[in-house]
Amino acid sequence: MKRFRVPDVVIRRLVLYLRILSEMDLGEGRVYISSQELGDRAGVSPAQVRKDLASFGEFGKQGVGYDAAYLREEIRSILNLHRTVNVAIIGVGELGTALARYVSRRAGRERRYPFRVAACFDSDPEKIDRVIEPGIKIRPPEELAETVERESIDIAVITVPAAAAQAVADQCVKAGVRALLNFAPVKLFVPENVRVHYSDVSLELQQLAYYLT
Amino acid sequence: MKRFRVPDVVIRRLVLYLRILSEMDLGEGRVYISSQELGDRAGVSPAQVRKDLASFGEFGKQGVGYDAAYLREEIRSILNLHRTVNVAIIGVGELGTALARYVSRRAGRERRYPFRVAACFDSDPEKIDRVIEPGIKIRPPEELAETVERESIDIAVITVPAAAAQAVADQCVKAGVRALLNFAPVKLFVPENVRVHYSDVSLELQQLAYYLT
Repeated sequence: MKRFRVPDVVIRRLVLYLRILSEMDLGEGRVYISSQELGDRAGVSPAQVRKDLASFGEFGKQGVGYDAAYLREEIRSILNLHRTVNVAIIGVGELGTALARYVSRRAGRERRYPFRVAACFDSDPEKIDRVIEPGIKIRPPEELAETVERESIDIAVITVPAAAAQAVADQCVKAGVRALLNFAPVKLFVPENVRVHYSDVSLELQQLAYYLT
Repeated sequence: MKRFRVPDVVIRRLVLYLRILSEMDLGEGRVYISSQELGDRAGVSPAQVRKDLASFGEFGKQGVGYDAAYLREEIRSILNLHRTVNVAIIGVGELGTALARYVSRRAGRERRYPFRVAACFDSDPEKIDRVIEPGIKIRPPEELAETVERESIDIAVITVPAAAAQAVADQCVKAGVRALLNFAPVKLFVPENVRVHYSDVSLELQQLAYYLT
């Protein structure tokens, strides 16, 4: 596996392919999907589909296509989604609350949704011990390090104000979290072995504005 | 201007450069920034910075760099951010509320933040007329078309459940909205002259999971 040489954009498409395969009604028996069909649904060329998948192995049969259920499980395994992925949400304002509820409710509904909201943190003393979903209680930041270890936190979702985000990221990294999803509108500086993705509504709006001309 | 030939990824970086320039303390007098410094802060090479900006014109001086305030205004203008951009939020659950408040409060605070939450819609009759921020009242979807025209809505932010998202997108497109920011976890089908960007926390988490290995 050329794990560390696969471009980010391929991983992004892999996630899309997985969603398409997961939405297919597979029912009983084998269902095949061609690279043409998968590409059409994902908005890329069939050659791109074949190339993306070939980075990870031989999944299709010439002239038959991909066994959809098999490909789905293979992609899940490539993406580490065949086991529970533990998420902590840091900063439980409106956005943090919305995300915590969305993820935990979806996990409750879909057997194959691997994300678990394992902990939520907020620095506001008034919020401590508040239950935002059954089983999810807001905890103070002082408990972050021990919680990361105890709950094997894989991903920290940062939904604190911009001014606090870097300090929170530093704490997470120190505690051993290796992937951050940052909703605060600032760039975060982290060691090379830590992965940060950004979700920033203002950046998205600014990009979209360009296309209004 | 090679407007329609500029790759999306360049626009994404342009937005980042703008953020970096906006965060600089420019004070009085001219402040110059080199492509090296801008690249360092954005996480790209100086050659990439020069190439990206060269797609739009001549902004820098050999050996001096870019006049930061001038470059900032030029990028704002390229991105259509020198005028108000009107946003409608469709689906006012927790996420929609959080986004409406975030955007409108930031606009209230930052003189140069061009986005205005011009309208919010929800199909729940219980929510109609509820005020979520001063001046922002939830309206029923039947008023979408007339509101898009009256308020010159540029961008619709879709925060309805997945099952309703395509119908909402269709309504927006029919009403004349040309840019959609979709938070519902589904791919939307729209005409070619309409731009859709996606913000999907589950897709982000799935991408991040890959890097946990």
